[in-house]
Amino acid sequence: MHPLDTAIALTSAAPGQFSGQTSPAYWNMVGPFGGCTAAQLLQAVLQHPDCQGEPVSLTVHFAAAQQDGPFTIQATPARTNRSTQHWILALLQPGADGQPQLVTTAMAVTAQRRKTWSASDQPMPRVAPPSAYAQAQVAGDFKPPWLSRYEMRVIEGTMPQKWDGADHGSLTQLWLRDAPARALDFPALAAMADVFFPRVWLRRARLVPAGTVALTVYFHADSALLAATGKGHVLAQARGQGYRNGFFDHNAQLWSEAGDLLATSHQVVYFKE
Amino acid sequence: MHPLDTAIALTSAAPGQFSGQTSPAYWNMVGPFGGCTAAQLLQAVLQHPDCQGEPVSLTVHFAAAQQDGPFTIQATPARTNRSTQHWILALLQPGADGQPQLVTTAMAVTAQRRKTWSASDQPMPRVAPPSAYAQAQVAGDFKPPWLSRYEMRVIEGTMPQKWDGADHGSLTQLWLRDAPARALDFPALAAMADVFFPRVWLRRARLVPAGTVALTVYFHADSALLAATGKGHVLAQARGQGYRNGFFDHNAQLWSEAGDLLATSHQVVYFKE
Repeated sequence: MHPLDTAIALTSAAPGQFSGQTSPAYWNMVGPFGGCTAAQLLQAVLQHPDCQGEPVSLTVHFAAAQQDGPFTIQATPARTNRSTQHWILALLQPGADGQPQLVTTAMAVTAQRRKTWSASDQPMPRVAPPSAYAQAQVAGDFKPPWLSRYEMRVIEGTMPQKWDGADHGSLTQLWLRDAPARALDFPALAAMADVFFPRVWLRRARLVPAGTVALTVYFHADSALLAATGKGHVLAQARGQGYRNGFFDHNAQLWSEAGDLLATSHQVVYFKE
Repeated sequence: MHPLDTAIALTSAAPGQFSGQTSPAYWNMVGPFGGCTAAQLLQAVLQHPDCQGEPVSLTVHFAAAQQDGPFTIQATPARTNRSTQHWILALLQPGADGQPQLVTTAMAVTAQRRKTWSASDQPMPRVAPPSAYAQAQVAGDFKPPWLSRYEMRVIEGTMPQKWDGADHGSLTQLWLRDAPARALDFPALAAMADVFFPRVWLRRARLVPAGTVALTVYFHADSALLAATGKGHVLAQARGQGYRNGFFDHNAQLWSEAGDLLATSHQVVYFKE
């Protein structure tokens, strides 16, 4: 079983109530990799018996530190229209007093997609194919387990090799796929939208405390485009926007190797100093 | 009283329960201007007696058509941390059966901001000052009331004059302020993040049905920066990203006339054909 399938395995004992477990394979430094949490929340929507259509939008708010161990996801179809469905989600864990505590909140939209005129104003950057770039080696002090769950071939904007305060800009481009390779689906794509280390580290070459507060993924891919992408590489790009008094944001795009825009994403991140 | 202050006036009869009324002044074609709804939801957070800090993020999901008339907003501080607070919001209106129906859902983050290193990777585009551009006249068939609530001086990417199917790109830049002028605050900034007509109209010069499904605003401005901006113009820019099978997204930036990035925004929009 692929580690991502293990990580997003949920059981449901009551309608809209799902039980899962944090994944050691996708552990980050002091909590789970946020992309894995996003994938688990989306999986709850997709597993819900009332789910209609395919994901269009997912917004996750990391409200509190998630502990290692079991969790519950409540997934509620708050409004079902003719072709769109709006979801409210909550991830809970037992608090110090044993009572369920809200850890993560989320909203999602699923929709019946119909064939329309389609286009992109975000053409894939011209880069060489994945084989032209070396596979990133996880080394040094910063090697959380989740990084080994991805094959990453960095084109531009790798983690600074020296924390010397130099300005590296804030653009990262990399070829990406699950390790081991796995056919792309919506939870995997949601997780991939969160693979970018904090832009503030790259921008400042300074390892300041930082953590994602809110993450949004817009899905342009439908299941047909995901199937066409299969186990191929995904080109992932992120760039910072504003950094001010404790928070910065970035926007990101993910393309299939064939050049189709699969998803766009943005997040706002807390940082110190 | 400024029409925006009238529009966002809420009364509270119980903790976290706010009552408001749709604004004729900010009416769109078949429902309220979405930016006004975003401002009302944010206002509920700011008026909540337990609110801590200033807005960092607001995501609004337009789940159903909102009717002209009264509404209720439920604002819940779902999680309060040392320096951040996570909000869950719902806007309800009586349905056909008289029972409250969920119309809009939202999440927000407020935070105590502390002075840190700050920078921008989205420098303000080099454009001439507001006085160099003519004020847009609301004319033709498309003149919803809300458009008259803004002074708009379009630099690039105005509404197509001919619906002839030509490709106009998807970039809009305009100088913007409330009409009459009003000192900028968080609700006004949230509303301004939604002033852009659907990118698909500009991109295709084709007036297809379209409506925002989900909108996010990240606030880079704190109250000090808002105060410095005052009644000055705001430079607003939006550009499309992907358009595929019924949905497109855009990202947007808003700067003060002094060149400070006030907010970034993105939305995913339903379209037909």
